[in-house]
Amino acid sequence: MAFSFQTIPGSVTAPNGFRAAGVFCDVKRLGKGKGSDKEVGLDLALIVADMPGPIAGLYTTNQVCAAPVKWCLKRMKEGVGQAIVVNSGNANACTGDRGLRDAEAMATETGRVLGINPRQVLVASTGRIGMPLPMTNIKKGIRLAAKALAAAAAQGKAAAEAIMTSDTHSKERAVEIPRPRGSIRIGGIAKGAGMIDPYMTPDGKRSREREIQATMLSFLTTDIAISQGLLQQALTTAVERSFNSITVDGDMSTNDSVILMANGRAGNSIVRSARAPLFQVFQEALTHVCSDLAKMMVRDGEGASKFVTLRVFGARNTYEAMAAARSVANSLLVKTSWCGGDPNWGRILDALGYSPATVAEEKVDIAYSAPESKKLVYSLKQGCPTKAAFERLCAEVAREAFDLHIHLNLGKGAAVVHTCDLTEAYVDFNKGDISNPVALGG
Amino acid sequence: MAFSFQTIPGSVTAPNGFRAAGVFCDVKRLGKGKGSDKEVGLDLALIVADMPGPIAGLYTTNQVCAAPVKWCLKRMKEGVGQAIVVNSGNANACTGDRGLRDAEAMATETGRVLGINPRQVLVASTGRIGMPLPMTNIKKGIRLAAKALAAAAAQGKAAAEAIMTSDTHSKERAVEIPRPRGSIRIGGIAKGAGMIDPYMTPDGKRSREREIQATMLSFLTTDIAISQGLLQQALTTAVERSFNSITVDGDMSTNDSVILMANGRAGNSIVRSARAPLFQVFQEALTHVCSDLAKMMVRDGEGASKFVTLRVFGARNTYEAMAAARSVANSLLVKTSWCGGDPNWGRILDALGYSPATVAEEKVDIAYSAPESKKLVYSLKQGCPTKAAFERLCAEVAREAFDLHIHLNLGKGAAVVHTCDLTEAYVDFNKGDISNPVALGG
Repeated sequence: MAFSFQTIPGSVTAPNGFRAAGVFCDVKRLGKGKGSDKEVGLDLALIVADMPGPIAGLYTTNQVCAAPVKWCLKRMKEGVGQAIVVNSGNANACTGDRGLRDAEAMATETGRVLGINPRQVLVASTGRIGMPLPMTNIKKGIRLAAKALAAAAAQGKAAAEAIMTSDTHSKERAVEIPRPRGSIRIGGIAKGAGMIDPYMTPDGKRSREREIQATMLSFLTTDIAISQGLLQQALTTAVERSFNSITVDGDMSTNDSVILMANGRAGNSIVRSARAPLFQVFQEALTHVCSDLAKMMVRDGEGASKFVTLRVFGARNTYEAMAAARSVANSLLVKTSWCGGDPNWGRILDALGYSPATVAEEKVDIAYSAPESKKLVYSLKQGCPTKAAFERLCAEVAREAFDLHIHLNLGKGAAVVHTCDLTEAYVDFNKGDISNPVALGG
Repeated sequence: MAFSFQTIPGSVTAPNGFRAAGVFCDVKRLGKGKGSDKEVGLDLALIVADMPGPIAGLYTTNQVCAAPVKWCLKRMKEGVGQAIVVNSGNANACTGDRGLRDAEAMATETGRVLGINPRQVLVASTGRIGMPLPMTNIKKGIRLAAKALAAAAAQGKAAAEAIMTSDTHSKERAVEIPRPRGSIRIGGIAKGAGMIDPYMTPDGKRSREREIQATMLSFLTTDIAISQGLLQQALTTAVERSFNSITVDGDMSTNDSVILMANGRAGNSIVRSARAPLFQVFQEALTHVCSDLAKMMVRDGEGASKFVTLRVFGARNTYEAMAAARSVANSLLVKTSWCGGDPNWGRILDALGYSPATVAEEKVDIAYSAPESKKLVYSLKQGCPTKAAFERLCAEVAREAFDLHIHLNLGKGAAVVHTCDLTEAYVDFNKGDISNPVALGG
């Protein structure tokens, strides 16, 4: 039987048997300074499954990792979950033992008000680093959210809004794998928009193969019936091709987390083999949701005016392809040239040259295209500038979104990285306003 | 006999037997765009010894390295030199075979007009990447410079001005080791001010121990009589503690070069042992000159408004100390927080956590001080925020220059890195002006 999937409206409440809520409990308070005329947004989200089920997760590999991440890493060993509680405005990072107790208290309070096991409650936080959580507000928020829980799409949206920090809009996606009886759905929400260069693994440990590295958070739900092992395998693959392949500013956060809950309510026979056709389409569909959310994050990157997809080919291996792509994507000089609409291949070649990837100048091709277009305009072939007119190249980079193709012509390693430009607005936003300490970014 | 050294006026012409010149030959032309109302500056420098002598050099480890660097690496194998010719405005990088021929032609023309062996002429270039050198202008410049050569301090200054690109002022330093007969002098010039994260080695190859990575150029002269091996040893040590310990924007250039010529005119008996007291003071004096020039580069970094000295202690080893320092120094979020005067230790701890260095959050101390002061104000001790008032910490970061002390408390590894903040001015400068392609930065 052949399966396919299609995009549907909604997010985390699209799959059967999930409810969500987003409420205001005054954690993200902006004080009287810079942001005083802004409306203070929602700041606590709750996503709840109607029954416990397998969970999968990937977490920051930053050695300095936040208390909620430490809590979740323990929960992952049990592999079962029923709820996710998230606050924005305060990262609960670098908060010592108190932070650990507060993360646990978030789970305990959520468990209490929902009548579920606190060990089946995942916790996440995002916002300023190094300040203790205002637990009175948080607990009040949890109680409010529990009352507001509903399966309506609007409640998924409220949850998506409640996890935002510097994001300018909420990020949601859902897909459906239609089946004659019991269609399978996947829904997700995510937030960016600075300190974005995630490198997450299931155990929060770096692999030897990769030394490269937002707070970015993404929470996903699905009603498929699946084993925990395969759920984790599917999420690991999906994140590698999506969230772990984006960068805004090269700063990996202490709080990056992606969590997926599955409640089995679609009623399919439990997927237990990676070779099952249903698993394969589930993998594709999940990757699609993560990829869409990841791209939304980059498009909404702090101060970003351009969305750039780097496509590296011909590296000696996949690791080198990713290292080359990240070196270019994180180069200040390359990012500022995009901001100015300058098709400056010299800076690109320079960044390739200092990357950990092997590069032979005389073999490098560099080209631009419209997003996902095969109509390439080359600026460099075999290390030599082409005769493409400067104006022609400028037209490519003038697009709000474009693809940059780099062929190293050394091997078969390939990688795709999504990134954005570096603008004055990024600097202005992140230099903050010391007259208003509570509004300073984390 | 005990030696010491002192700063004296002047630069590359301060040592006996060196002449210099800086001329205009229209390489750095700014066209009719953005820079049209700026005075077009000098763009070709020549530094000449009255006799051949040992040379030492360190060059970029960028795999994409400019034609003049390739020329110099060959000359280093011979170890003897008598002149350095340098142009600004065009990097002669990524210019293929023509670039190699042009670099050689610069040496040949210099040799011809000076009546010296072209293989004893070192060549350097800085400016835009990927454009062929205007050789007619360059050759004219070499002839003009040869006529202008003089030992006056003003000519050293002219050379320092001729190597500038985005620098706002020239960079010069000279020192003297007084001796009863025949004092020894060292003089130097340098340029920054973007694409600055040098990691140079004598052979342009990276060591395995370090995978970290402007155009920065520095040219040094000395009249000491010394063996080539010791001259290189002294320069390698000096560069490791100076130019290789700075970063402006994390972008390592294709052209970074430091070259030192020694003509033996001080009349000392040739230094042949690293244990000789004279060598030791020479080493100190040379390190002092390089260190002063490196700091001038950072202070004049593109758009920089703050000069920050990072002092990392207690890393597991020297490599990890340097890796930790560079991760903080190159973090966009840390750099932008300095721009805003925000003593944000959370971003610092975050950048430490994703660095290749081992970091234990609960052991980290972070403090600020005035430059080189021992009066430290701690913001974090053993991973916990101190009670220092926010205003007190802001006062530390409000200084135009300050020291940031980071103690990892894990071992004995230490490193010092000089860097600057990231400002809107950096972005504005580097985004360039595509209506004026010739003015776009390299």
